[in-house]
Amino acid sequence: MLTNVRSDRVKSVRSLSRRSARERTGRFVVDGPQGVREAIRCAAPRVDDLYVTPSAVERHNDLVGEAQDAGIHVHEVDDAVLAAMSDTESPQGLLAVVASERPTLDDVLAGRPQLLVLLSNVRDPGNAGTVIRGADAFGADAVLVSDGSVDVLSPKVVRSTVGSLFHLPVVTGLDVDATLGALSAHGIRTFAADGVGETLLPDVDVSQPHAWVLGNEAWGLPAEIRDRCTDVVRVPISPRVESLNLAMAATICLATSSGATRRP
Amino acid sequence: MLTNVRSDRVKSVRSLSRRSARERTGRFVVDGPQGVREAIRCAAPRVDDLYVTPSAVERHNDLVGEAQDAGIHVHEVDDAVLAAMSDTESPQGLLAVVASERPTLDDVLAGRPQLLVLLSNVRDPGNAGTVIRGADAFGADAVLVSDGSVDVLSPKVVRSTVGSLFHLPVVTGLDVDATLGALSAHGIRTFAADGVGETLLPDVDVSQPHAWVLGNEAWGLPAEIRDRCTDVVRVPISPRVESLNLAMAATICLATSSGATRRP
Repeated sequence: MLTNVRSDRVKSVRSLSRRSARERTGRFVVDGPQGVREAIRCAAPRVDDLYVTPSAVERHNDLVGEAQDAGIHVHEVDDAVLAAMSDTESPQGLLAVVASERPTLDDVLAGRPQLLVLLSNVRDPGNAGTVIRGADAFGADAVLVSDGSVDVLSPKVVRSTVGSLFHLPVVTGLDVDATLGALSAHGIRTFAADGVGETLLPDVDVSQPHAWVLGNEAWGLPAEIRDRCTDVVRVPISPRVESLNLAMAATICLATSSGATRRP
Repeated sequence: MLTNVRSDRVKSVRSLSRRSARERTGRFVVDGPQGVREAIRCAAPRVDDLYVTPSAVERHNDLVGEAQDAGIHVHEVDDAVLAAMSDTESPQGLLAVVASERPTLDDVLAGRPQLLVLLSNVRDPGNAGTVIRGADAFGADAVLVSDGSVDVLSPKVVRSTVGSLFHLPVVTGLDVDATLGALSAHGIRTFAADGVGETLLPDVDVSQPHAWVLGNEAWGLPAEIRDRCTDVVRVPISPRVESLNLAMAATICLATSSGATRRP
């Protein structure tokens, strides 16, 4: 059992809450049972180490067994060590260090995607995580993230995806303009979701391959990006309400694309 | 200009971040320009005081003018006083103290509502606020909140409604069982939104008066509540994803009811 909160190992895991350390090492942290379970099930070869407290071993015996069967290094640690490794106030007893995967836009396009999301300058970790989770729930083929957006491997984003990060490719660091061009060249329509849109969501043809393009929480999508999209689409809401938040708008657009709200 | 951060006035405003003080005084705090604007526009007679910093007076001159025209007491305060009054880390220069309104279920039912939301034991302020905002955006007639739920007048909930709290009645402290009975007696169908439902969202008839019933973030709706509802409805999602979070599920159900996702 690891008990030294000042060990190099603890410091090195804790450092992964910083983007610079994640980029230097190519590693990130997954915290909590749901995220760890999906990491083990969907990305075991990328899981370097799993740290568990004795009480978490009891609560999640099956999970620890799965990790061992998959050849993952499982380390028992005391509560203080786990707390020192994690950046959450209430760690849940399980934490994995995982090697980053860096899928490319070309990889995604090669799979002839039907439904994509492109996030442009999205800054809030909870929003980014919720969009990734929604994309997974509604069967999107990938999430594309612009440079200038929040790092999707930051602990808060990883946590709020609740494991969805391991279910679909998330391409990061993209130039929005170049990405819109590539999507268009592959016959994928691009729908800017924005309150200024004149096309209403119920009038969008979601039967062909398309990507929802979503902008920053505060200022939305700049006109030059909207203008490059196939259409600018608005979710019809009460005129009393200024706007939907990003995660809500993304959720509704994705659910509509997937047919989760009404039969076609 | 008020500059004494230790004054009784500052203490009394700050105390409203506690539920007990809100209940004793029948007052709550609205923070930030969007919430304050909706309070002034929709509930001016209930706004006791508006506190603004000099820089916010400049930025939101129109708003301060509207408040004065509505006969609201406007007090200029320095940044330190505003920060001491507010419970946020980054106050935005405007803060209003508003008298609570306590609409009843009978008031709501008397208006022959078409679309309602009932929250049972919802604990997270951000979720509750997002549901209230979604209910407003998609034209719900009211939000009903069970006892045992988060206080909707807590600063975090108020903030996350972004003013929607002033657009539609929010009835609190309800007994869920009695409420389901009253809805049924008024011919309002009740749809429990829950991952265990066998009816899929696209198959629900949303053309008749109905209420979406949503449960706790972690454990959902207990069977005895689900069984009392007209139907238990599931949003169809990928089997890889355990569940949608409460705010996402509520948003999708409400958007579907309002016809925001597809033409009927």
